[in-house]
Amino acid sequence: MAQNTKPEIAFIGLGAMGFGMATNLVKQGYPVTGFDIWGPTLDKFRVAGGATATTPAAAVKDKDHCVCMVATAQQAQAVLLDGPDPAVPAMPQNSTLLLCSTVPCAYVQSLEKQLAERGRGDILLIDCPVSGGAGRAADGTLSIMVGGSDAAVAKGRFLLQEMSDASKLYIVAGGIGAGSNMKMCHQVLAAVQILGASEGMGFASRLGLDPRAAGERCLQSKARSWFLEHRLPRMLHPEFQPVASALTIILKDTSIITSEARRYGFPTPLTSTAEQAYFSAVGRGWGADDDASLIRLYTEGAGKVGQVAGLAETEEAKTSLVVNLLRGINLCSATEALSFAKRVGLDLDQVLDLCVNAAGGSTMLQELGPDLVKALQGDAGAPNGGLKLQEIATGLQEAVEEAQRLKIPVYLGSAALNLISIGVLHNPAKADDITATSIARLWTP
Amino acid sequence: MAQNTKPEIAFIGLGAMGFGMATNLVKQGYPVTGFDIWGPTLDKFRVAGGATATTPAAAVKDKDHCVCMVATAQQAQAVLLDGPDPAVPAMPQNSTLLLCSTVPCAYVQSLEKQLAERGRGDILLIDCPVSGGAGRAADGTLSIMVGGSDAAVAKGRFLLQEMSDASKLYIVAGGIGAGSNMKMCHQVLAAVQILGASEGMGFASRLGLDPRAAGERCLQSKARSWFLEHRLPRMLHPEFQPVASALTIILKDTSIITSEARRYGFPTPLTSTAEQAYFSAVGRGWGADDDASLIRLYTEGAGKVGQVAGLAETEEAKTSLVVNLLRGINLCSATEALSFAKRVGLDLDQVLDLCVNAAGGSTMLQELGPDLVKALQGDAGAPNGGLKLQEIATGLQEAVEEAQRLKIPVYLGSAALNLISIGVLHNPAKADDITATSIARLWTP
Repeated sequence: MAQNTKPEIAFIGLGAMGFGMATNLVKQGYPVTGFDIWGPTLDKFRVAGGATATTPAAAVKDKDHCVCMVATAQQAQAVLLDGPDPAVPAMPQNSTLLLCSTVPCAYVQSLEKQLAERGRGDILLIDCPVSGGAGRAADGTLSIMVGGSDAAVAKGRFLLQEMSDASKLYIVAGGIGAGSNMKMCHQVLAAVQILGASEGMGFASRLGLDPRAAGERCLQSKARSWFLEHRLPRMLHPEFQPVASALTIILKDTSIITSEARRYGFPTPLTSTAEQAYFSAVGRGWGADDDASLIRLYTEGAGKVGQVAGLAETEEAKTSLVVNLLRGINLCSATEALSFAKRVGLDLDQVLDLCVNAAGGSTMLQELGPDLVKALQGDAGAPNGGLKLQEIATGLQEAVEEAQRLKIPVYLGSAALNLISIGVLHNPAKADDITATSIARLWTP
Repeated sequence: MAQNTKPEIAFIGLGAMGFGMATNLVKQGYPVTGFDIWGPTLDKFRVAGGATATTPAAAVKDKDHCVCMVATAQQAQAVLLDGPDPAVPAMPQNSTLLLCSTVPCAYVQSLEKQLAERGRGDILLIDCPVSGGAGRAADGTLSIMVGGSDAAVAKGRFLLQEMSDASKLYIVAGGIGAGSNMKMCHQVLAAVQILGASEGMGFASRLGLDPRAAGERCLQSKARSWFLEHRLPRMLHPEFQPVASALTIILKDTSIITSEARRYGFPTPLTSTAEQAYFSAVGRGWGADDDASLIRLYTEGAGKVGQVAGLAETEEAKTSLVVNLLRGINLCSATEALSFAKRVGLDLDQVLDLCVNAAGGSTMLQELGPDLVKALQGDAGAPNGGLKLQEIATGLQEAVEEAQRLKIPVYLGSAALNLISIGVLHNPAKADDITATSIARLWTP
């Protein structure tokens, strides 16, 4: 009966991510009591071996550890403090509270303050958003970004380790809020590359390429991103099934990024471009659909734009346009993410290590990330494998021009090209001499 | 029979603009022979007192003056040179050819070259695109931007005068291509402010304002633009009637701007944002609809975005958000237009005078244009009525944040806010000291 020696865990929020995380804990032998407002998921959780509760308070009663994995700060505030039968008043003294939801830094800091104000400063709060998708949630191999007091992290570490890959548990300096800031910077890559995956494959489709073959080619090229790889099967499904990550989820994270960035006076042109496309899609009633369905924003124009003709004729030439589109977008998203991380005061080497190995990963980030970090740290002479901005820009421009001929929107590609153009204007060096990584100056003069 | 003393005119292209222009010439007593590929318009033109021809060649035969007002460079090339029974070979020696279509500078320059190569260097070509809409076309009070040799302009001037308002005939230095460049820079204002009108009124509608009242308030404010005034009635029509200017028309001009700008390595972030929205709308099958119908991109989300709540409660507060949104967009569009005019080498005082008095006009352009021109001419200490960039940015940010709360796309507002944010980052002055017009540095460091 070795399993009975493991501590009881309360788990609030059994959505796509939370369900996987909680059932993984069950598999690891923890007695887990789950709560969710949606009844059917509780039934499913019992089948998976969990116990269930009908209120947050009942779930946490006598549990020394509580994981909260609801979708938004509003939901967290409700289940923890302000809703019916909230968790916090029922939590045992000195228990740990792991907030795994993606929330604004300001929210988790306010939660810490509220706990103190309500006389529950004893609770060991841990700010620990996750990344990696539902598959890694269920495998217990997530990337987790952890901020909190030493005492809290020490007490909760075993649980963080159960949920994460051994090499992907990041203890972020800065206490409560630092984990959320790290996740936020990572989500810049998600916000841009989720739409980017649809933009690339939608463009491929409108060029007349087989999107499956084009996608596979892109994954072997500088266009590769984790999101392209993971969204590709669902983009190819006629009904974008299964719904693994609803559009509203990434939109929520995207709005956290842009609203936090405004507090800092920090520009997020790429993330904002994605956000506007997400608003368009939500406004069309697609909010509950998988975000891979955003490919519709691009494919719907086929046959509706009148007589058009492109220049690219061979499959090779067309595929190259798609690769160059995504390469340019991914360079800019990597730069926007790392520049924002610098702005909010994170350790860039740690951010890069996290992002490369989490959902934000891409070939551009992997290849140029180390030099981007050096450039952002003030090392102007950082090498970058000889890649010049002009090469990226020329390839991107060819893609944007072909899209223009065919009347295909390329929201991100067009925004990235204009940013590069502004960056070149403001760089005193000769255009041909400008390194790819020096585009970072646009966000961080 | 005084009218018979006026010279015969051939008029090719009797669309929304061309029909008005040609019938105005008929009213002024000119014998006008029209040609169009669409039969019904020819019948209508005969009813209006014109003569008609069944081919371009037949229309121009024995006419000393030919006006060409087709929609695109491709159409011009067809009716003048490459299509069936083209006009040029049938034109009398030393006759004038007024190309009023909006075409790339490069096209009208290539047309001049083709005339010489085909042995018709005798034809007096005038590069003379127009602005002002169908109403002013029919009244003979258009704004016209004229490039060409002194001899050609001298011979064609009477006709240009018949079609234009006395104070709105601009002879642009630089010969063939200069008129088209001036029109292109003017169209930056059109490209942005046409979408801007829909963005402002769509935002108003989603805020719960009566769009008619909100529109009228905007027209009395710093949000006023010619396009808002002229699109407002059609935006309010349940079916966006009448179709006075199809979306495909402004999209064509928009693509001329962005593709010419790329040749110069000049960034057009606002125009490009509009272009992508236009591609989206064309891809939804709205290409033939009036461009005022773009308001649908914003209004369609009403009731489809889930539970949302904004902060603005009073009509006053909501209207102020709409005004501040459009004020920010119009500042940036004015700056993008004038900066591009500087880049292509135009006389900025002339460009400003044209734009303020043509369809591109807006209160922001009128109030800040003179100081923007001075700033672009290198007069760093140019006054600007004390308007600070921070004031524009704060108002714009409040609008963008409310739109975010309500999940309403504000493509242009969001792009403008990010541009201002980048501009502030790159300006060495303290944020509070930066003048509104110094945003020009972003396009012209």
